[in-house]
Amino acid sequence: MINKLVAKIQKTHAPIVVGLDPMMGYIPGHIQKKAFQEHGETLEGAAEAIWQFNKEIIDHTCDLIPAVKPQIAMYEQFGIPGLAAFKKTIDYCHEKDLVVIGDVKRGDIGSTSAAYAAGHIGAVAVGSKAYHPFDEDFITVNPYLGTDGIQPFVDVCKEEKKGLFILVKTSNPSSGEFQDRLVDGRPLYEHVGEKVAQWGAGCMGGSYSYVGAVVGATYPEMGKVLRRIMPKSFILVPGYGAQGGKGADLVHFFNEDGMGAIVNSSRGIIAAYKQEAYASFGEDHFGEAARAAVEAMREDIGSALEAAK
Amino acid sequence: MINKLVAKIQKTHAPIVVGLDPMMGYIPGHIQKKAFQEHGETLEGAAEAIWQFNKEIIDHTCDLIPAVKPQIAMYEQFGIPGLAAFKKTIDYCHEKDLVVIGDVKRGDIGSTSAAYAAGHIGAVAVGSKAYHPFDEDFITVNPYLGTDGIQPFVDVCKEEKKGLFILVKTSNPSSGEFQDRLVDGRPLYEHVGEKVAQWGAGCMGGSYSYVGAVVGATYPEMGKVLRRIMPKSFILVPGYGAQGGKGADLVHFFNEDGMGAIVNSSRGIIAAYKQEAYASFGEDHFGEAARAAVEAMREDIGSALEAAK
Repeated sequence: MINKLVAKIQKTHAPIVVGLDPMMGYIPGHIQKKAFQEHGETLEGAAEAIWQFNKEIIDHTCDLIPAVKPQIAMYEQFGIPGLAAFKKTIDYCHEKDLVVIGDVKRGDIGSTSAAYAAGHIGAVAVGSKAYHPFDEDFITVNPYLGTDGIQPFVDVCKEEKKGLFILVKTSNPSSGEFQDRLVDGRPLYEHVGEKVAQWGAGCMGGSYSYVGAVVGATYPEMGKVLRRIMPKSFILVPGYGAQGGKGADLVHFFNEDGMGAIVNSSRGIIAAYKQEAYASFGEDHFGEAARAAVEAMREDIGSALEAAK
Repeated sequence: MINKLVAKIQKTHAPIVVGLDPMMGYIPGHIQKKAFQEHGETLEGAAEAIWQFNKEIIDHTCDLIPAVKPQIAMYEQFGIPGLAAFKKTIDYCHEKDLVVIGDVKRGDIGSTSAAYAAGHIGAVAVGSKAYHPFDEDFITVNPYLGTDGIQPFVDVCKEEKKGLFILVKTSNPSSGEFQDRLVDGRPLYEHVGEKVAQWGAGCMGGSYSYVGAVVGATYPEMGKVLRRIMPKSFILVPGYGAQGGKGADLVHFFNEDGMGAIVNSSRGIIAAYKQEAYASFGEDHFGEAARAAVEAMREDIGSALEAAK
């Protein structure tokens, strides 16, 4: 799957992932209204609004981008109907040949991580049958429990040719509280980065490992160091746009071949119609606004990478 | 909710939580067979088997125990039907007046943690309505992202009078890989424990805070230190029984009043019928075997606490 991701980035010239994090505040009134007319102001109604919103974003951007990253919390908050919309979104993205990165940030002790791995990127046995319940292509994973909490995910990746992005340095303001603490004179995130490189060494695709890392765009200097520590790990970079990261900050997350990183933007794309720059599209044309925002992001990152050559 | 938990422990004399982690291998053949006859060997069939299994465990133990801890991964691995069985289990436990600790180990950047908090222990708005989608009483949370990833959970706890158990030192063999690393001369888990005490200081119930901690039974010496660092935090202690923890190891997790900790056992109770000690109950009477295992665990912990007085 890492090879597919690399190939799709090369084809689209867009190391971009669209974060499908459909907060209700982003969903235009006409979509909410229609969904609530059909299902009432219920969890099912919310889930229908999310699904219709996602579908329009996907339809307007799928030819420009290699991948999407649905944030499961935005679906899980609407309970079972919300999670059904998560699954429906994954399936639709696969129809459109998009790589799906499930942003689930799971992680637990070994036997429990094995269950999460089966449910999200692997198969689960039921009697003599086997099912792939959520079937994302990649998922994000939390490393706090150490190797035996990660290994079951890695094992499933090998079997299923799926992939991981393990949290190393997150994009939020207080990520440094624990992640930056010095251990043997170096920040904890560097030690985690070294483990990511080790975990990934045993499952290489072509140029990159199935096991990647999450490093926030908001910490470009740390990205530079981590790029060196994990040369074969693809880096998923959240925090571009709304959280403050800019194209010029991102060049050090990439390798010299211009590959090795994929940058996420969520509300900067899916709620572009709310920004002044794209307001002229209007609420009814939020999908076209999202498309324009993807094109601008591709240009921003592309010219930053070009300038850095 | 912390006050309810304390009151129920005092009433039952059992600082015990039954881990509802229904792996298929634990579910007796006759339950699986019946579920598959009704629903086929499908995800729905697996979910029905889980639900019937849980119901029997709950029916046979609910008068002896204050709380249950369903591990969501064991449900999530069966996709949407599995998660529906998770919700059905929560609702049934509430009917039986049990405190429900959702072992979900969520944690993300602020806005995303807010969505998880809404879905699991809070309310989500849909138009003019509000819903409590999963409605656990407590959930477990991962601290790797720091304060701004935790605060939304704490805020919801205050509003809804719910509670948290934040991972401090986990029970698994490689938990030390990052958690034990020395930061300013002290292990990282102590720093996390100090933060848990701080986060919890602003939301006290009676004697204890709504914000508790997870510390594995497999590390009793660390439990002793963490008990002192977080005197007002209830400690959820996994790792008893099958993972190796014994009653005598647990005394230091408790305060001198004999309160302040609740010990989880999962397979040691729900799959007790598979152990030699309870084999005489037979597979058909797995619920009674679970009850006997709860009674033995209560005795083990009770006499250890008595001996330590």
